[in-house]
Amino acid sequence: MSIPERMKAAVLFDLGDLRVTEVPVPQITAGEVLVKIEAVAICGSDPGIINKGWKGYPILGEFIPGHEFTGTVVKVSPDVFELQKGDRVAVEPHKGCGRCENCLKGLYTTCLNYGNYELGHRHYGFSTNGGYADYAACHVTTLHKLHDSIGFDEGTMLTGAGTVLYGYERIGWVGAGETVVVTGPGAIGLMSAHIAKILGAGRVILTGTRENRLAVGRELGADITINVREENVIDRVMELTDGVGADLVVECTGQSAPAAEVLDFIRKNGRISFNGIYHDLVTLQLDKIVQWNLLITGPKAEGKLNLKRAIPLMADGRMNFKPLITHHFKLDDINEAFDTFNGRIGGSIKVIINP
Amino acid sequence: MSIPERMKAAVLFDLGDLRVTEVPVPQITAGEVLVKIEAVAICGSDPGIINKGWKGYPILGEFIPGHEFTGTVVKVSPDVFELQKGDRVAVEPHKGCGRCENCLKGLYTTCLNYGNYELGHRHYGFSTNGGYADYAACHVTTLHKLHDSIGFDEGTMLTGAGTVLYGYERIGWVGAGETVVVTGPGAIGLMSAHIAKILGAGRVILTGTRENRLAVGRELGADITINVREENVIDRVMELTDGVGADLVVECTGQSAPAAEVLDFIRKNGRISFNGIYHDLVTLQLDKIVQWNLLITGPKAEGKLNLKRAIPLMADGRMNFKPLITHHFKLDDINEAFDTFNGRIGGSIKVIINP
Amino acid sequence: MSIPERMKAAVLFDLGDLRVTEVPVPQITAGEVLVKIEAVAICGSDPGIINKGWKGYPILGEFIPGHEFTGTVVKVSPDVFELQKGDRVAVEPHKGCGRCENCLKGLYTTCLNYGNYELGHRHYGFSTNGGYADYAACHVTTLHKLHDSIGFDEGTMLTGAGTVLYGYERIGWVGAGETVVVTGPGAIGLMSAHIAKILGAGRVILTGTRENRLAVGRELGADITINVREENVIDRVMELTDGVGADLVVECTGQSAPAAEVLDFIRKNGRISFNGIYHDLVTLQLDKIVQWNLLITGPKAEGKLNLKRAIPLMADGRMNFKPLITHHFKLDDINEAFDTFNGRIGGSIKVIINP
Amino acid sequence: MSIPERMKAAVLFDLGDLRVTEVPVPQITAGEVLVKIEAVAICGSDPGIINKGWKGYPILGEFIPGHEFTGTVVKVSPDVFELQKGDRVAVEPHKGCGRCENCLKGLYTTCLNYGNYELGHRHYGFSTNGGYADYAACHVTTLHKLHDSIGFDEGTMLTGAGTVLYGYERIGWVGAGETVVVTGPGAIGLMSAHIAKILGAGRVILTGTRENRLAVGRELGADITINVREENVIDRVMELTDGVGADLVVECTGQSAPAAEVLDFIRKNGRISFNGIYHDLVTLQLDKIVQWNLLITGPKAEGKLNLKRAIPLMADGRMNFKPLITHHFKLDDINEAFDTFNGRIGGSIKVIINP
Repeated sequence: MSIPERMKAAVLFDLGDLRVTEVPVPQITAGEVLVKIEAVAICGSDPGIINKGWKGYPILGEFIPGHEFTGTVVKVSPDVFELQKGDRVAVEPHKGCGRCENCLKGLYTTCLNYGNYELGHRHYGFSTNGGYADYAACHVTTLHKLHDSIGFDEGTMLTGAGTVLYGYERIGWVGAGETVVVTGPGAIGLMSAHIAKILGAGRVILTGTRENRLAVGRELGADITINVREENVIDRVMELTDGVGADLVVECTGQSAPAAEVLDFIRKNGRISFNGIYHDLVTLQLDKIVQWNLLITGPKAEGKLNLKRAIPLMADGRMNFKPLITHHFKLDDINEAFDTFNGRIGGSIKVIINP
Repeated sequence: MSIPERMKAAVLFDLGDLRVTEVPVPQITAGEVLVKIEAVAICGSDPGIINKGWKGYPILGEFIPGHEFTGTVVKVSPDVFELQKGDRVAVEPHKGCGRCENCLKGLYTTCLNYGNYELGHRHYGFSTNGGYADYAACHVTTLHKLHDSIGFDEGTMLTGAGTVLYGYERIGWVGAGETVVVTGPGAIGLMSAHIAKILGAGRVILTGTRENRLAVGRELGADITINVREENVIDRVMELTDGVGADLVVECTGQSAPAAEVLDFIRKNGRISFNGIYHDLVTLQLDKIVQWNLLITGPKAEGKLNLKRAIPLMADGRMNFKPLITHHFKLDDINEAFDTFNGRIGGSIKVIINP
Repeated sequence: MSIPERMKAAVLFDLGDLRVTEVPVPQITAGEVLVKIEAVAICGSDPGIINKGWKGYPILGEFIPGHEFTGTVVKVSPDVFELQKGDRVAVEPHKGCGRCENCLKGLYTTCLNYGNYELGHRHYGFSTNGGYADYAACHVTTLHKLHDSIGFDEGTMLTGAGTVLYGYERIGWVGAGETVVVTGPGAIGLMSAHIAKILGAGRVILTGTRENRLAVGRELGADITINVREENVIDRVMELTDGVGADLVVECTGQSAPAAEVLDFIRKNGRISFNGIYHDLVTLQLDKIVQWNLLITGPKAEGKLNLKRAIPLMADGRMNFKPLITHHFKLDDINEAFDTFNGRIGGSIKVIINP
Repeated sequence: MSIPERMKAAVLFDLGDLRVTEVPVPQITAGEVLVKIEAVAICGSDPGIINKGWKGYPILGEFIPGHEFTGTVVKVSPDVFELQKGDRVAVEPHKGCGRCENCLKGLYTTCLNYGNYELGHRHYGFSTNGGYADYAACHVTTLHKLHDSIGFDEGTMLTGAGTVLYGYERIGWVGAGETVVVTGPGAIGLMSAHIAKILGAGRVILTGTRENRLAVGRELGADITINVREENVIDRVMELTDGVGADLVVECTGQSAPAAEVLDFIRKNGRISFNGIYHDLVTLQLDKIVQWNLLITGPKAEGKLNLKRAIPLMADGRMNFKPLITHHFKLDDINEAFDTFNGRIGGSIKVIINP
């Protein structure tokens, strides 16, 4: 397969103005690989990037968003020995500079040179070009071979799975047999519930307002769902835990009131992972962190190669996100894809674009 | 059901001389519960206790061994509010003194007052009477309610499961997607392989010499088995891991040569949990701990309430040790049960006694 | 020295009505020791207990507050072998029930049976009688022998030191060479700054509004102090850390605005320990926990025997809180002592009562 | 100061044949800095490298050993913004490839591409040229600015200090107030004892055979020394710890018998860090790891930027290794320096070469 000189890409011309146009196929430099993109999923953070911008991204008229993608290797830089033409890969959006203190300590998703292209930092679809295109130039450290049994579409879910896993790693993994409450049945919440069970949770309780999403949660392994419009979540969790509270809460609503409320059903010595994007301030009973001896963290993206951790789990079918993939579009129809995603049209959860 | 005054029990009259006789039903004191024993499994440590003794156990002629047991609550001390008559329970063999530094820090399986009955330490079947009997007096902190879906026989496996889980907790749990090698397909090895998968291991490799045991391992979830009589285990693990080595090794042979050999197929920065009983000294390339930056531990029994962690996993069928239960005997036939266990007669793995 | 039948004690007759009266010397039961109290320090939580009450304390007219105390053993229960008459001891306020899940896991300061006297829980000066008295009955697990070189007065500081140390333990200790910011130069803040240095912090930055307190902080080892009335604390910390932020922040103001502000000068991947008592809600940029990959906790009192950890450090003079002890009173003058403490009269920091 | 074209360097011409000769000053490439070497210390691993070789080092006739060095920046690659001419620096010997799994996770001292120069791995004085020379080309990620108060000679101790600190980090840091036993008063042992105290150890016990070295240990902060030729170390440690054993043992003898013996005086639940170079196999009571619930590790060199952690501690005088520096030589006298070091002539501990 010969590589063309030009390709189709969805370029952000102005805030809110994303259009498919023709641009040069990117050149690869040392350590890089050219990937023919096979599938890219819309992430919940994409609409914000497109409509409100992202600090430090490339100039309008050039920037190509999209960061949950898979593809096929079509060209490798001569110094790359890890991959070869034809390899099927999942792409990790973050590449650290490799020289700041955080990168040297393995914390590349919080690289201190974030957005500094010259120093080698990359964040595909955020600070550098991403995946809504036919091709992308990706550094070898951001590529992970897909197992044969993982399709390109499902493979796009690995980015989300990696973030969820990193959250669990940072909070000390799921303790075997623990009762885990996941709040909010968005894509990350559903993944969090599914993965908690895969990692040995005793019971997974999923909360939310939309009955159809809670049903997907049950399909993905949630033992109990609580519709917060119909039941008092605090009372219910306390009842289910003999008045003790949840061992681990994974907050995935991204909203202020539910985020504050987790302190009301966490157990003494419980752990909380905040996995949402919190646009607003949150008003908390901070004292409970001290009096209840809590441990709190939240994952900055799919750090410490957690995307890679997800691959064997997806390969043998334990991790199965196919129920989340509700829609497919061609790259030319990207705006329709975003409308479907944003409007939750047809019960959309994950919307895939196949360039 | 009225409680009789006397009961049958297997008493150790001399080293190697275990006989069923009649003794008084034990009295319960503050914090204690009388348990009618329904099932007790022979543990790999029992033959040693019976034939060679155990430092500090009760005097010969009185000592009742047996520490993997389940039963029904038939009487509770007035100060016990956590349980009531009729509750089905699994018994945790260790009760710490509750006042030494280790107990206060939650490390009761390594109680500094081990064997001190007056100070409140108990180790059923080791330093105090155990479960090869009709009844046992157990402290409330050592009892865990059995979920309805767990039978008494399978419930005896919770002790072993708790030890395996404690090993995983101490070594930092199984990291999602990791390649775990379990050496030795004895009961603990088979449980370790099964549980690794339940906790999110990517691949589980089980090694051993007996093909029938390796087959049980595959039935319990091992992805790959290596018969060390037919293949070079070091070469094979290295090949399976692209020359890197295993992320985590759980050593379950209890033998010196295999225990030393794990250093040859662990990865740099790998973790090792020694889960065996090592009667002999082991000669190691200690330098590799330093040069390979390894982390090593081993679980002292089912610490930190890990027996309890196993209950929800067994209750919903993820943890299924029924393939390990190969034989049943009545208490009167306990010596035949031990012969079956020790001689691996009829492919015995776990042998259950139902008093 | 014979033990009298009656003793002086400061009893809480009504909210805000603390008076010295005569009461029976407490009886000791199994596991207990009678301590003749030599010194007790007023803790910042005492005024709230006295004026607003504490959930579950003993009935008014009987309750004796006070929980930072030292004394001499004058009588031991026959089952207590760890101590003997004449031993000088520091008292740990918390004793767990010893049978709930948290206690069994070593988390006795968050005992699930908090306040349940019958089950064995004790919290001297909170849920059970404390130290503003001539004598107190204390469980052996709450007593720690004082090294000869530690005076009774200074020994009362061990409770606070234990809490500060537990905070450091929970947040992963102080990493060697780290830049630690401590906010708020109250007693706990000053102790936190002093102890950070003892544990190997690179630089300790102490913030506050009162110049005389900041001066005490410098005397205790703070390398840099920031008067937040004169300098912008965010700008200053960022400047001192080359724009990266603090590795670890220990929040000790207990106030909402400064507690929220720590998120503005913590580094990416930083750790925060909330050590204050936060009476009010706190409104936070919660999103930063996720985007900055933070780790957050707060210590529930002097857990996991951290009071004991402080003893050798104080014994050899590395930990020196004598500059904090500003005033002494007799028990009869307890209300004057509280006035001095509450009004910060004469620059009071720690006020000691010697019964 | 102009940079000459040629320089003096100690080149390894054959095993055991180290000679000072003239070679070209190294060229710097992207990310690199030319360092004028001011001081380099002989490490205990150097004699082995020189006399027995090191797997994968540069060819004989070109290889320059030496890896504990400090110097002055004299030239920087245009892409290096972190340093400038005139900066005084300490050099970290390890630079990972930055693209293998271990490097990406922050574990660069165990880089999976160790010795692969093309992929960017460096290990100065081991797999690439080191510091027994006038100049060295060093990657920016391996350089740490020296505080003004740290001299070049003392700065060479930062490498050892970084290794010791990494050992403490890996074993969970020193717990405040713990009793730490350090075995073996070589340079790393003496540093380990000194640093344990700096990090908050309660008591530090140093063991050894040489009285003069033990005296240096006491000067550096060891509270108690045990001459194992005169006292039974097991009995003595047990006596000092009320029969419980040491909380943490740092094994620094590198010899088989003492390495095995630490299992006899560690406490239940204790931690062991093996810091030595163990040329021989070690025969251990492995069972104790399980029965005593031990945690064991050993640091692969100065990982996770621990060299940098040591700088503020040395800068303010808490870390003071000047008593270890016993001898100085010029580069021309390097073989005399090695003779002094190897023969422990004149009580030599650390021998410095100033090019």
